[in-house]
Amino acid sequence: MQHLSIEHIGQWERFYRANFINCLTGYKSVSLIGTADVSNRPNLGVFSSIVHIGSDPALVGYINRPLAAAPHTLANIKATGIYTINHIRPGFVAQAHQSSAKYDAGVNEFEAVGLTAEYKAGIIAPFVAESLVQYALKLVEIVPVKHNNTFLVIGAVTDVFLPASAIQQDGFLNLPQLETVASLGVDAYFTTELVARFGYAKVDRPIEKL
Amino acid sequence: MQHLSIEHIGQWERFYRANFINCLTGYKSVSLIGTADVSNRPNLGVFSSIVHIGSDPALVGYINRPLAAAPHTLANIKATGIYTINHIRPGFVAQAHQSSAKYDAGVNEFEAVGLTAEYKAGIIAPFVAESLVQYALKLVEIVPVKHNNTFLVIGAVTDVFLPASAIQQDGFLNLPQLETVASLGVDAYFTTELVARFGYAKVDRPIEKL
Repeated sequence: MQHLSIEHIGQWERFYRANFINCLTGYKSVSLIGTADVSNRPNLGVFSSIVHIGSDPALVGYINRPLAAAPHTLANIKATGIYTINHIRPGFVAQAHQSSAKYDAGVNEFEAVGLTAEYKAGIIAPFVAESLVQYALKLVEIVPVKHNNTFLVIGAVTDVFLPASAIQQDGFLNLPQLETVASLGVDAYFTTELVARFGYAKVDRPIEKL
Repeated sequence: MQHLSIEHIGQWERFYRANFINCLTGYKSVSLIGTADVSNRPNLGVFSSIVHIGSDPALVGYINRPLAAAPHTLANIKATGIYTINHIRPGFVAQAHQSSAKYDAGVNEFEAVGLTAEYKAGIIAPFVAESLVQYALKLVEIVPVKHNNTFLVIGAVTDVFLPASAIQQDGFLNLPQLETVASLGVDAYFTTELVARFGYAKVDRPIEKL
């Protein structure tokens, strides 16, 4: 095991260091976030810091980079209060990654990257038609992270769209069946294979494999 | 695609719903967090909501559940300001999962679940010896999430320990080589396989596969 101090890491070239630090936290739940501005112009961006906040109420967070670096998605969420999160499949990882390019505010990223905006009744934000797990959220809280001017954006899930066959007997989702990818660092995408599921852990009995 | 409204989901049985909602955000960067209390008694817990906050400074966050549900790790972090995060390998996923059991404050979870506490010079929190990616953090900010009494706990990376051979030419970490698992829901662990890495996305040129 090599020991790397933060002082040592701090001397590395900027992109080398960013790759390293971005990988350190492990695999991430990358998804495409769809929004619309007040004129109903669609916007699409890829976000790899989506985090489960709570089940009841069903709250989902994501980290939005400083506004100067990533303004459009958060501006639209603030303006309309509604957004969609869409899982990514191996068949469109290139298009998903391309949506991280800094398009101008007026550009429709769906068209620019080659994905299909899908609209559903009563939800003003666009979904990604190619995705097999799509959900809509209503903004509940934007929590500023003072230390680096990022924001934890928290939404309440309002609607979920997926193939019913992927919901297992106990509510668990078969994401390999739905082709959901994980990400790593700023540019890598992975498929997955199940190692094991375990029962609820108790202090007084051995762990049970499901 | 089946449409599930949150009103419909809200009527589901509690554990079924929790499995479903916990899977909705996709794969997670599960790790073991090691802490010590002021009397140097070690504590270990598994956390699956670790999130990259920023690269420079290198900041890592995790969501701590309400204090009544998960008190020990956060109490120790508040008391000492120091903690470790350790990736999980398939060979000890059962032990890692067992650390989610609600052990009393005095219990040494390393011993209780069968993992090895490893101490390194100058760092008071224990590492997991079986892990191939270990890093230490210094607490910088605890951000309360008002909507469900959770906390975004943010630390600055101070030291990283891993096999040098896993660092690729551009700083990217070969986590499959290090056997790092991803998690899904509250109880599932996965290995991964690379689909693709892509170059930095630009608006005026096609995406490039690395």
